Amino acid sequence: MVETNIIAEPGKQEIIITREFDAPRDLVFKASTDSELVAQWWGPRGTTTTVEKMDARSGGTWRVVQRDAEGNTFAMHGVFHDVTPPERVVDTVEYEGMPGHVVLETETLEDLGGGRTKMTDHLVFQTVEDRNAMLQPGMKEEMASTTELLAEVLQRQISKKQAAPAR
Amino acid sequence: MVETNIIAEPGKQEIIITREFDAPRDLVFKASTDSELVAQWWGPRGTTTTVEKMDARSGGTWRVVQRDAEGNTFAMHGVFHDVTPPERVVDTVEYEGMPGHVVLETETLEDLGGGRTKMTDHLVFQTVEDRNAMLQPGMKEEMASTTELLAEVLQRQISKKQAAPAR
Repeated sequence: MVETNIIAEPGKQEIIITREFDAPRDLVFKASTDSELVAQWWGPRGTTTTVEKMDARSGGTWRVVQRDAEGNTFAMHGVFHDVTPPERVVDTVEYEGMPGHVVLETETLEDLGGGRTKMTDHLVFQTVEDRNAMLQPGMKEEMASTTELLAEVLQRQISKKQAAPAR
Repeated sequence: MVETNIIAEPGKQEIIITREFDAPRDLVFKASTDSELVAQWWGPRGTTTTVEKMDARSGGTWRVVQRDAEGNTFAMHGVFHDVTPPERVVDTVEYEGMPGHVVLETETLEDLGGGRTKMTDHLVFQTVEDRNAMLQPGMKEEMASTTELLAEVLQRQISKKQAAPAR
C-alpha cells in the first residue's frame, strides 16, 4: 500500500500531500495529465470520473466531473499555468460547488531512482477558511483511496509494457 | 492622491492591496484588462511597459515587459483563470526573474456608489518566503506610484468621455 502523507498546519492556507510510487517519473507524469488515465484513478473508489477536458499545456483548460455511487455529481475545473514534463504542473482548481474559490496547485514529481517517484501536491488556498473547508472528515480516507487507485493504474501500465513484445 | 493600503501579516503567504478610485467600476475594469490602458499605468513612474499579450478570458494568457530608466527589463506572465466583468479577475503571475514561483492573484472591484470604485488585489504565494521576497524596500513607494498612474489614466478616460459630443 502506498502511504498518503497530508500536511495541513493550523492557521496556514495550504495543504501539502506527498506519495511515493513504485513507477518511473515519466509514467507518473503521464498518469497525471492524460485524460484516459486520469479518469481511471481520480477517486475515491466507487466514483465514476469523466475527464471532459485536460489540455495540459500553459493556458490550457481542464474540467473533471465525478459521480458517486448515489449519483451525486461534483465538477471542478481550472487552467494550466505551466506544464514541464516530466517534473512539474502548476494549475488552478475551482470546485464548482464552491464557485469563486480558487486554489493554486503545484504538482512536483521527483525521481527517487530505482524506478520510484515522489509526488508532491501543494495546494494554496485564497483563505485559511477555504483551506479548512477541504479538511473535512473523510478527506484523508478519500485521498488514500485515490492514491491506491493511482498506484493500480501505474502498475497496470507497467505490466502492459512488460507484456508487450520487444521491438 | 489615492491611498494605497498594503496588508502583509507576518508569517502569512498573502498580500492584500486596496485602493479607491474616483472612477466608475466599468472603467476601472477596462483599465485593468485592456492592453493599451494597462501599458499606460503599469508602473512605477519612469518605467516603460509593453503589454505583449493580455487575452483577458478564462484560459487566456498575458505577458508584460517593463523597462526602467536604466534600461533594465523585467518580464512577467500568467494565465487567466476567470474573468467576470466588471467585478473580478483571477489569474496567475510568474516573475520571469524568479522562474517557477507562481502567485495566485484575485482582483475584485467593488462599486462604492457615486462613481467610485474600490479595487482589492489579493496575492497568494506558494510560500511565505516568496511572499516576503516581494516585500522588498521600496515596494510600497512603487505600488503608490503605480496607483497614481492608474488614477491619472482613469481621469484622462473620464475627461475624454466628457469632452466627446453627446450622440
